[in-house]
Amino acid sequence: MQQKVGIIGCGHVGSDVAFSLVTQGICTELVLVDQKSEKASSEAMELRDMLSATHSYTKVISGGYELLRDASVIVMAIGPTTLLEKDRMEELKETSAAVRSIVPKVMQTGFNGIFINITNPCDVITQIIAKESGLPKRQVFGTGTSLDTMRMRSALGEHFQVSPKSISGYVLAEHGESQFIAWSGVKVGTKPALELLSLEERAEFKEKVRARGWNILLGKGWTSFGIATAAARLIAIIHDDAREVLPISVYDESEGVYAGRPAVIGRDGVCQILPLEQLTTEEEKLYQASCAVIKQAFSTVYTK
Amino acid sequence: MQQKVGIIGCGHVGSDVAFSLVTQGICTELVLVDQKSEKASSEAMELRDMLSATHSYTKVISGGYELLRDASVIVMAIGPTTLLEKDRMEELKETSAAVRSIVPKVMQTGFNGIFINITNPCDVITQIIAKESGLPKRQVFGTGTSLDTMRMRSALGEHFQVSPKSISGYVLAEHGESQFIAWSGVKVGTKPALELLSLEERAEFKEKVRARGWNILLGKGWTSFGIATAAARLIAIIHDDAREVLPISVYDESEGVYAGRPAVIGRDGVCQILPLEQLTTEEEKLYQASCAVIKQAFSTVYTK
Amino acid sequence: MQQKVGIIGCGHVGSDVAFSLVTQGICTELVLVDQKSEKASSEAMELRDMLSATHSYTKVISGGYELLRDASVIVMAIGPTTLLEKDRMEELKETSAAVRSIVPKVMQTGFNGIFINITNPCDVITQIIAKESGLPKRQVFGTGTSLDTMRMRSALGEHFQVSPKSISGYVLAEHGESQFIAWSGVKVGTKPALELLSLEERAEFKEKVRARGWNILLGKGWTSFGIATAAARLIAIIHDDAREVLPISVYDESEGVYAGRPAVIGRDGVCQILPLEQLTTEEEKLYQASCAVIKQAFSTVYTK
Amino acid sequence: MQQKVGIIGCGHVGSDVAFSLVTQGICTELVLVDQKSEKASSEAMELRDMLSATHSYTKVISGGYELLRDASVIVMAIGPTTLLEKDRMEELKETSAAVRSIVPKVMQTGFNGIFINITNPCDVITQIIAKESGLPKRQVFGTGTSLDTMRMRSALGEHFQVSPKSISGYVLAEHGESQFIAWSGVKVGTKPALELLSLEERAEFKEKVRARGWNILLGKGWTSFGIATAAARLIAIIHDDAREVLPISVYDESEGVYAGRPAVIGRDGVCQILPLEQLTTEEEKLYQASCAVIKQAFSTVYTK
Repeated sequence: MQQKVGIIGCGHVGSDVAFSLVTQGICTELVLVDQKSEKASSEAMELRDMLSATHSYTKVISGGYELLRDASVIVMAIGPTTLLEKDRMEELKETSAAVRSIVPKVMQTGFNGIFINITNPCDVITQIIAKESGLPKRQVFGTGTSLDTMRMRSALGEHFQVSPKSISGYVLAEHGESQFIAWSGVKVGTKPALELLSLEERAEFKEKVRARGWNILLGKGWTSFGIATAAARLIAIIHDDAREVLPISVYDESEGVYAGRPAVIGRDGVCQILPLEQLTTEEEKLYQASCAVIKQAFSTVYTK
Repeated sequence: MQQKVGIIGCGHVGSDVAFSLVTQGICTELVLVDQKSEKASSEAMELRDMLSATHSYTKVISGGYELLRDASVIVMAIGPTTLLEKDRMEELKETSAAVRSIVPKVMQTGFNGIFINITNPCDVITQIIAKESGLPKRQVFGTGTSLDTMRMRSALGEHFQVSPKSISGYVLAEHGESQFIAWSGVKVGTKPALELLSLEERAEFKEKVRARGWNILLGKGWTSFGIATAAARLIAIIHDDAREVLPISVYDESEGVYAGRPAVIGRDGVCQILPLEQLTTEEEKLYQASCAVIKQAFSTVYTK
Repeated sequence: MQQKVGIIGCGHVGSDVAFSLVTQGICTELVLVDQKSEKASSEAMELRDMLSATHSYTKVISGGYELLRDASVIVMAIGPTTLLEKDRMEELKETSAAVRSIVPKVMQTGFNGIFINITNPCDVITQIIAKESGLPKRQVFGTGTSLDTMRMRSALGEHFQVSPKSISGYVLAEHGESQFIAWSGVKVGTKPALELLSLEERAEFKEKVRARGWNILLGKGWTSFGIATAAARLIAIIHDDAREVLPISVYDESEGVYAGRPAVIGRDGVCQILPLEQLTTEEEKLYQASCAVIKQAFSTVYTK
Repeated sequence: MQQKVGIIGCGHVGSDVAFSLVTQGICTELVLVDQKSEKASSEAMELRDMLSATHSYTKVISGGYELLRDASVIVMAIGPTTLLEKDRMEELKETSAAVRSIVPKVMQTGFNGIFINITNPCDVITQIIAKESGLPKRQVFGTGTSLDTMRMRSALGEHFQVSPKSISGYVLAEHGESQFIAWSGVKVGTKPALELLSLEERAEFKEKVRARGWNILLGKGWTSFGIATAAARLIAIIHDDAREVLPISVYDESEGVYAGRPAVIGRDGVCQILPLEQLTTEEEKLYQASCAVIKQAFSTVYTK
């Protein structure tokens, strides 16, 4: 009855995923792994310091990959060595190489749970993890456009003075520049966004959402609270076998890439990839174009 | 019916207090203030990004001191410009000057809630806030030895394989080098620690607890999860008017300083300072000696 | 910063609302009122017995209407003297008379918060409370079809193996026999229900949802967990000023009755009544017919 | 990674344990069993109706004993057919016979988890379950004096205006008339109760706590919120492997009976029974006398 989560990479993102999990009591055991072992062990010690003031109890340890064998979920959260200076292509080379070195070590332990990838570029790295791990594709997914969708909901909610929980609809495809808001499915309460916002306003919102991460990065030096919250929620859904629908990076058979789209998530990972039924023709083109961007990036670093 | 928290200082500690509050839904409104306004506004934006994935809703904004007028609680969480290089005396000069400049600006708004101080050296700075604000002393307290007590409970709990929640007892006096574990009141479940641990073992535990923050700092570069969790808990207790007993930095009349000791906390702040009834003579001396250390530090920077 | 809830009527429903509130820590103060004062005081005592085992603290008391003056929310949860034997018209006469006697006593205290009505027939009784209290209509609403909508989502979620949280759409109009599922807006994840279910299947689901309360009543003798959870959620939304959209019984100007439809809920009660934009012509007729049923029932007991 | 709880008996207590578990998300799967299958299935349906309004997801089903095979915890919560009219001896005959008929059916499924007994008389019935199940004694315990201890903490907390969480100490031995408050270990914050309360006041408190359940029963017709909260907490502790100390009914080797005393609780059930180190000689006699009462009752219904 153990619900054991492993986090690989204890930078801002990995640590804040851990902080959120322990604060909320989402798992019963948590293992932190980082190439700097004293970083992981310090984070674990801080998290254990919380345990007389939290409602629930979580066993928190740090160590090597061998501790991950029986994890129900592993979160991949390694980052590039620097954030602001790199261009995306440099980041891709660095993180894809790191992931290709790490995943085989994890698989050697006999791990057979769910891999949730946060490491950027998210869609490409998720696909590399799927390939390298050899796990069934339902057991490997990325946080994808879940954070972008949360940002879209926050931005619209703030504008219309409605809770972000009452905004429906999704940001689709790449967790990156080519992403788009599928406006045809966005509603503010019961009202279709297409009736509430002009073309110009929609373009502004799209830009706001896409740039939101960048703006946070500039002011704060990194981003972590949003993605940590998204990842913690995904893990809760897996542990509860809740079968909730969230937009995550899943393997799209017809496009041949991992890309952000709504899927049903449960104990076995991706239970069902939902159709993009309501897309307009233009939105479909945006989706395909974004998938092509992911595919191109993938092909530059992975040729197997 | 608003439960409005202000946080002054959006470094690691202030931001993680905010993250914990929003994750747990402990307040209904949160105001972030930082001398770098873009830092505060980025943190606020990240926290708002979380709101479609949390159970509760929190209004999060950033801005100037004028937003703090009707706060129920203000958390002082400014830090020194650098952490690892400074000696304590340098830190004191820097943070006490900053606090003396900030508090009058807060009081000018008409603020009449509870001030919780985290800024180090915690006891001295809390006393400065009390003096500068002119608020009744029950409305100003510091996190004091609450974190040290959490660390003591974690360390003992890990050793005896018992939940840290089932360890009772307190670390007292200075949140700093002269602190001590009041062993006479420590129990592991129903067992007195004095019967479980030799003098040498107790000395080792004391050292472990005192050094735990330092060890985390070395591995991680800062500490924040523990203190953020402690502060969030204190705020929840105030908002619920729960009247729970926790060791915080309160004004000790007979010693003439703020120092860490158990007190009853509720809507009005410090409802009652509890007697240190069970201290041994030796522990009483340790307490007084630690208070003297605080007093000495206070007198070097504050002469009013 | 107090969040004070009053509950009038400590039968199964009122007591379970209280149990849910204290378990979740949704308010800071809770007042139970019942015509049998020893019933209210026993419930309050049981709820206070919980407080060393809950995460949050709630002050729980019982007594007379005078305690409700400064409540942020009052839940009306009185029931008929018997449940299974009565027909609806009998129930209406009994509960409307009771409510007309209670509301003036509440208003004499100076109460100026939000009235949430659960007492059946919900829509009619809500309208009577609005009339008798003289409060602005935004401060008086009923749980309406929120429970029916929860049941619809559960039933569809069970059928399609998807979380009820990922089913969108609403049950509208009367919390009673004439209610209907507005199928045109129901989606299972991203899939429109109209494409997933035949006319016959939809009719079966409608019948299932409508009869679900009755079936529970037969097996259990009453219903309470669902409605208690709905009410607790509404109170949390009000206290957080979350502005979430839920289907509740609000005053429909054009129909001249209270009826169940989606509205934005916040600190001031009903912030905005949303348009029923996507209804088919047939659904619009069902809505009007159901409103007519409510109006007719209202007119039989209330002629002011 | 499943956390599956079975509840046998869906009266007020069993149902409210279920309501608390689903509200708090303490397990991932919940099975309700009752001799009246339509009662269990109605409760399960109501609990499923909650799932679009709770933070977490719980799979809730009802059915026969065969569903309990892989449960991590089973709660025994059957009650007598009537509550107020019976004397204790009648209740014992009825519930012990029922339990002796049920336990073998559960064990035939291959169940090997933890049995938590609530059914009264709690200590005797717990011992019967231990005997009949043949499970290791650490896997069978009763809620014992956990509720009585919660009541003692509430009563003292109300009197001294301190949170019940900040009252330490235990009610020991029989969950029934011969129970006693072990005053030597009771503290209000840091203050020993022996210094705060006179002999007469302590006698009054003892009587108040012992009679509290009875008073609630008279006003409400039954008691359930307190015990349901205690049971939910115990299950959370087991699932988290939290190793918290709570007073539960465990097997006391030297007395040869199950009786209420503090024990460390974790994934394997009772991890450690703590010594009653601080009892006065008089308290020790009270403990032994109470154990004798339990033993006598046990011997009247169980002779194996």
